[in-house]
Amino acid sequence: MNYQRPDLTVDIVLLTLIQGRLHVALMPRDKAPEEGKWALTGGYIHTNEDADSQEAALRTLRAKLDFEPRHLEQVFTEANAQRDPRGWSASIVHLALHDPEVLQDLVTSRGMQLFDVEDDGAHLPAEMAFDHKLLINKAVARLRAKAGYSTIVGHFLPESFTIAELQGAYEAVRHTKLNPANFRRKILEMAFLEPTVLLHSSGRPAQGYRLVHDIDYFDRELA
Amino acid sequence: MNYQRPDLTVDIVLLTLIQGRLHVALMPRDKAPEEGKWALTGGYIHTNEDADSQEAALRTLRAKLDFEPRHLEQVFTEANAQRDPRGWSASIVHLALHDPEVLQDLVTSRGMQLFDVEDDGAHLPAEMAFDHKLLINKAVARLRAKAGYSTIVGHFLPESFTIAELQGAYEAVRHTKLNPANFRRKILEMAFLEPTVLLHSSGRPAQGYRLVHDIDYFDRELA
Repeated sequence: MNYQRPDLTVDIVLLTLIQGRLHVALMPRDKAPEEGKWALTGGYIHTNEDADSQEAALRTLRAKLDFEPRHLEQVFTEANAQRDPRGWSASIVHLALHDPEVLQDLVTSRGMQLFDVEDDGAHLPAEMAFDHKLLINKAVARLRAKAGYSTIVGHFLPESFTIAELQGAYEAVRHTKLNPANFRRKILEMAFLEPTVLLHSSGRPAQGYRLVHDIDYFDRELA
Repeated sequence: MNYQRPDLTVDIVLLTLIQGRLHVALMPRDKAPEEGKWALTGGYIHTNEDADSQEAALRTLRAKLDFEPRHLEQVFTEANAQRDPRGWSASIVHLALHDPEVLQDLVTSRGMQLFDVEDDGAHLPAEMAFDHKLLINKAVARLRAKAGYSTIVGHFLPESFTIAELQGAYEAVRHTKLNPANFRRKILEMAFLEPTVLLHSSGRPAQGYRLVHDIDYFDRELA
């Protein structure tokens, strides 16, 4: 046998959208290596208790943050000899999305901090653990692409939101402007929203909606 | 430490397009477990020689098939306690694409066989190794989605191809019909092709093209 088993971990890029800018929740590492550097939430797969990698990510979030994100999905695996000084390691990287109010409370209570990830990560801390800056940039790029053909950005919104708020989230993540009438028509045609209550957050009352199911891939442009 | 390191492998879903239908290249497994069952090409990460998971996939293809695919990319990682009788294991699954002539020669020389993967895998062998049928179906679904917004299907064509042949490949993979004039205009606008020679394969001569670079995500519909 001419190999050792590599380390296998999960890392979670926990994102939210604050005033139209994507932010990631980071925590200073509490042990060596890379102690004190800002890091993603993550940990080893526990083969004795995790049924699969998604469960490993959920267990890690529960254990470290006592938190379940609104949306969690695997996005890619970073696996090479260089990323961890302890040796060859693979991280199954997950994207987790939640709304900003809940995440800000969580961050305050857990010693985490939210960092703006716009402008190609220019506002991330200079000193980050391992290859976590790369993992964040790759996960954000995946989210931006995915936002063009799925309902994923709906998970940044509170449970009840207006069509205008949903459009704002798409525009912010995609760095684009959409036509409101086209957006409303296409979104309602795809039937992934159901009406909730009237919302009064800004200006005149507007119909609130909630996401009833996710669409992973819709074969049309939004506007 | 309350875990053992899981096994970490790469598996390669090697696809081509024959008469408008996607096919996968499989080989009977030559050892236990699951000896004799049809399987993907794959193997363990060799931490002493593979720089990263992409290199591990390329080394595996070279060692087992003496072959380098036209296109190779990681698509997802399947990681759970059930998929291998030997214990918790993770496979970093790659999609490899090549043109059918070359792949048919390879298959003939290596004891492999090409299986039609259309109709949700109904034509795949009934007895397949491990979870390889699931891995194929997931990789094909990813390819179909990706074909909607990238140049990936260009890698199924020979080095020089006509716009009509490229349109045929998109239509076959996407299970859709595209408008030829719109398709030609949009494809040429995106500037990922350059002219080669006149091709005489069917009917009157048509301009041949080759792929000069990949576009991973284009923000428009093809027709």
